[in-house]
Amino acid sequence: MRVEAIRTKKDMKVSELLEAFSSSAFNARRLGEAGKLWKKMLEEDAFIFLTVAGAMVPAGMRRIFKDLISLGFVNSIVLTGANFVHEICEALGFFHEIGSEKVNDAELAEMDVNRIYDVFIPTSAFIAVEEFLSKLFEQLSGSFSSYEIVWEVGKRLKDSFFNLAFEKGVPVFCPTLHDSIAGLHMMIYGKKMMLDYKKDIEKIVDLCSQKRKMGIVIIGGGVPKNFTLQAMLLSVGFDYAIQITTDSPHFGGLSGATLEEAKSWCKLKSDAKAVTVYCDATIALPILVCYLVDSVGKREI
Amino acid sequence: MRVEAIRTKKDMKVSELLEAFSSSAFNARRLGEAGKLWKKMLEEDAFIFLTVAGAMVPAGMRRIFKDLISLGFVNSIVLTGANFVHEICEALGFFHEIGSEKVNDAELAEMDVNRIYDVFIPTSAFIAVEEFLSKLFEQLSGSFSSYEIVWEVGKRLKDSFFNLAFEKGVPVFCPTLHDSIAGLHMMIYGKKMMLDYKKDIEKIVDLCSQKRKMGIVIIGGGVPKNFTLQAMLLSVGFDYAIQITTDSPHFGGLSGATLEEAKSWCKLKSDAKAVTVYCDATIALPILVCYLVDSVGKREI
Amino acid sequence: MRVEAIRTKKDMKVSELLEAFSSSAFNARRLGEAGKLWKKMLEEDAFIFLTVAGAMVPAGMRRIFKDLISLGFVNSIVLTGANFVHEICEALGFFHEIGSEKVNDAELAEMDVNRIYDVFIPTSAFIAVEEFLSKLFEQLSGSFSSYEIVWEVGKRLKDSFFNLAFEKGVPVFCPTLHDSIAGLHMMIYGKKMMLDYKKDIEKIVDLCSQKRKMGIVIIGGGVPKNFTLQAMLLSVGFDYAIQITTDSPHFGGLSGATLEEAKSWCKLKSDAKAVTVYCDATIALPILVCYLVDSVGKREI
Amino acid sequence: MRVEAIRTKKDMKVSELLEAFSSSAFNARRLGEAGKLWKKMLEEDAFIFLTVAGAMVPAGMRRIFKDLISLGFVNSIVLTGANFVHEICEALGFFHEIGSEKVNDAELAEMDVNRIYDVFIPTSAFIAVEEFLSKLFEQLSGSFSSYEIVWEVGKRLKDSFFNLAFEKGVPVFCPTLHDSIAGLHMMIYGKKMMLDYKKDIEKIVDLCSQKRKMGIVIIGGGVPKNFTLQAMLLSVGFDYAIQITTDSPHFGGLSGATLEEAKSWCKLKSDAKAVTVYCDATIALPILVCYLVDSVGKREI
Repeated sequence: MRVEAIRTKKDMKVSELLEAFSSSAFNARRLGEAGKLWKKMLEEDAFIFLTVAGAMVPAGMRRIFKDLISLGFVNSIVLTGANFVHEICEALGFFHEIGSEKVNDAELAEMDVNRIYDVFIPTSAFIAVEEFLSKLFEQLSGSFSSYEIVWEVGKRLKDSFFNLAFEKGVPVFCPTLHDSIAGLHMMIYGKKMMLDYKKDIEKIVDLCSQKRKMGIVIIGGGVPKNFTLQAMLLSVGFDYAIQITTDSPHFGGLSGATLEEAKSWCKLKSDAKAVTVYCDATIALPILVCYLVDSVGKREI
Repeated sequence: MRVEAIRTKKDMKVSELLEAFSSSAFNARRLGEAGKLWKKMLEEDAFIFLTVAGAMVPAGMRRIFKDLISLGFVNSIVLTGANFVHEICEALGFFHEIGSEKVNDAELAEMDVNRIYDVFIPTSAFIAVEEFLSKLFEQLSGSFSSYEIVWEVGKRLKDSFFNLAFEKGVPVFCPTLHDSIAGLHMMIYGKKMMLDYKKDIEKIVDLCSQKRKMGIVIIGGGVPKNFTLQAMLLSVGFDYAIQITTDSPHFGGLSGATLEEAKSWCKLKSDAKAVTVYCDATIALPILVCYLVDSVGKREI
Repeated sequence: MRVEAIRTKKDMKVSELLEAFSSSAFNARRLGEAGKLWKKMLEEDAFIFLTVAGAMVPAGMRRIFKDLISLGFVNSIVLTGANFVHEICEALGFFHEIGSEKVNDAELAEMDVNRIYDVFIPTSAFIAVEEFLSKLFEQLSGSFSSYEIVWEVGKRLKDSFFNLAFEKGVPVFCPTLHDSIAGLHMMIYGKKMMLDYKKDIEKIVDLCSQKRKMGIVIIGGGVPKNFTLQAMLLSVGFDYAIQITTDSPHFGGLSGATLEEAKSWCKLKSDAKAVTVYCDATIALPILVCYLVDSVGKREI
Repeated sequence: MRVEAIRTKKDMKVSELLEAFSSSAFNARRLGEAGKLWKKMLEEDAFIFLTVAGAMVPAGMRRIFKDLISLGFVNSIVLTGANFVHEICEALGFFHEIGSEKVNDAELAEMDVNRIYDVFIPTSAFIAVEEFLSKLFEQLSGSFSSYEIVWEVGKRLKDSFFNLAFEKGVPVFCPTLHDSIAGLHMMIYGKKMMLDYKKDIEKIVDLCSQKRKMGIVIIGGGVPKNFTLQAMLLSVGFDYAIQITTDSPHFGGLSGATLEEAKSWCKLKSDAKAVTVYCDATIALPILVCYLVDSVGKREI
């Protein structure tokens, strides 16, 4: 099949561009293939995990996550502690600022401004998070999975995709919740509560054992990738997998590992369909979602 | 200014997505800023070089290059010998095939198939190129700049952006023409001709010395980047620069060097506006062009 | 100061090469500077954390970790669940095999061989790990920090650097212990026990609050990096930091984030000395240790 | 075969570490294998090209290049215009300074200091280069290959590895000589001379057609890599290849392309032995040379 030269036109839609990408080469083609694979997962009503590492909420991806849940494009999310905390910042009315990486960080520190590459956030936001989480953690008693804590937050914060997750019963796992300031607050304020990841593992292993097609969309590797893939060690492996990463296979780390490698571990089925896109997810993810909106519209879950 | 969470919608246009990118973060924001900077260059009627390294023609970008010339979005192109040769393949009616990087290359060799990552091209295409170039090089006598050779090719191949470049008098430099099979053919068949890069240097230094705003859009580094930037050593430096690269600054090579570094060499003016996007150009470039088509339309040159 | 051209010689020692590196450029210089900074930390008797992400044990770095503890070059280690599990494999007498990344992973799966880039490990090793961990987790009752679990393992496995850590009372944190097959086993067998990361946080915050120079050596980012840095949010920041990574700053993720960025968060002091080396740690770490062995010898801790 | 945990020891030699690397994993193993493959090339008295892209001379690698020639570890070098020019700077008595990438480049420009990542060089060095090259180019008349120009320089500059190359008749190709300030000077001062790359191509094709084992050691891709590999299109392909790069295959560019891909083009023989090391060459190259010094000593050429 021929590599087709991409033709642009006036008012070109993102979904049209993605179609064009799929007949080109390199990561444009991979992005095109990823869109079509995600569409296929939806058409086959697969159960789809989205795993999220990297500062996606600070980078402006939180509405995307909300859409992915409300449009039924994912069935469960697995994210990092940082995304958990920064989503709370936003939902409390604080915001991330357009900053720059060309700054004097010592001066930022003096101004109580914290930097995530080219994004700034004032320390005041974290004080508000502490106020919010301290109350929550003081209220809670007993042992909780991370997804239950996410739901507890969702109950209390209307302007968060955690609220939608709570209302729709979508499990949002946070297997590194303790690896964030939420962990520090839990240590200080959560005297009667316990974060019990065994419950998370039980739940995710259950979800991975469903008798339906199983899919995973991996943003950026890390614990969310591994935690979700390893749940398949107790089941039969994913049927479909998409990976968007800026890491490379040849350094041997999991975040850059190919989806092929996951087949040797039986985390993916031997005949699983899998696509890796080497691209910053801030670019790739919105493109994929635009394509799904145009080509699928909505899936009931 | 706030990082705005990206919102997708039905029938979203690429140009709308680029607008949204510009208020997000990381490379999505950089891509958004690059689009706006290119637009600004056009509004100020800057003279714009496009430099192209990497296998962009095999990857399906040749219509984009044609559009960039016909819509007046660039004034000159500087490309590698490989892009020169593969454009001839396409214009002769051969095509690049959708291949895969998961193959046995020794077997491909036996089948006379050559691989560029996930693109295949049969050896027969290069035989046709040799037939074409041998005739051309036998006809030519005297000394030629690379852009004159590109024009000579353009005269003879209607279905090539080289033809448009020839007709519009747009200089397309190929400072590594000898570093391609065209170089081998020139050695064998070009007995009466000479490739004289001094002419290229004279011409590009002249172009860099115009009394107007000067801009550069760099795809992927390499000789095209350096050759164009260094021409400014004899002039006053670029006013605007965009760089799309997958290389990194921290290994010290030119392809990954920041545009800031170019300021120390006076290749960019001290107050030049510059944006680097760390992204595969097969994704980033079509997005930028869609944005320009919608927001600028066309520039007369 | 002049960049000195590196001169090799017969029988050149690694420590001599590192000295030469420190007057060169790019990542060779950074590696040289990292060696000297680590030496300085030892001379000032700093408390030094080593954080380890990436498959360092499978890649043959376990003796290095043992040496780092026995020679007093680090005071505490923070590692991933995968390194925890694979160290148990080795200590149980199983071994990682020299494999290749150019394989058919589906075939490996059929042969019960698991792949970590170019390293193979048979599934039988994990069966032995399950046997070992199931007994351990059935014996344990009550709540445990991850470093206590590492010590419990160390007590039982003489041929592991966990044993040395146990005997010397060196805390080896594993903040993603649940994100490994040990997590699955804990869910199945650890009915009477609980992994309580609040205890880990308490301990590491205590360690970070000592009145002495504080240093950190970061291998590869991930949770170990973040977990250790964030403990400083409740203290005054690190004085010294070394980072060996193959990730890049410009994608906005924590694993690639500069040590400067950590200053904005007060995780490093404003005047902290910090060096990042962009290099595969399998190459960089042994070089650093050779240098310390020659230039420091041993530190009592 | 077992992955052997690396053991360090007092006074460990670089060559011993390389041996240890070869039984480890990831890029340490690749570096170990590269050392052994280079040794094998020497034992079989292969003709060995070294191709050099990236600012290796500014980074302090020029004595290494000298050693490689004087010890007979390479038979020919192919380098970039930048390395050509910066070697002249050094040989004229100027030097590259230990700088920093954390600077204000506009201020550097005002101070007439030019930056190459973390290396500084004053503009005065280039004035001296111009003085030297203007005289040379005014003297020369007729057409020259790049390696003849390198030899002409070598004749005149005793303290350069070009001098050694000249004296030993080692061809040092510079297929991007025009893509450097030497190109600008040639345009201005070389009125009676012509740089004729056809001569370079003829020569390198001849060298590639020898009836002996043929090897290539690639530092950093770019034109030097392509120019040397493509010469094999008119011969039978390399028997041995080593590549040290910081680029990645998955972006489709030549600098990151695998050596397997080169087999599809018949630039490497189907059964060629090839190793790629993903590492900054400032670290990897001196290690390899130390290993060769200890394990081979010297080869007569």
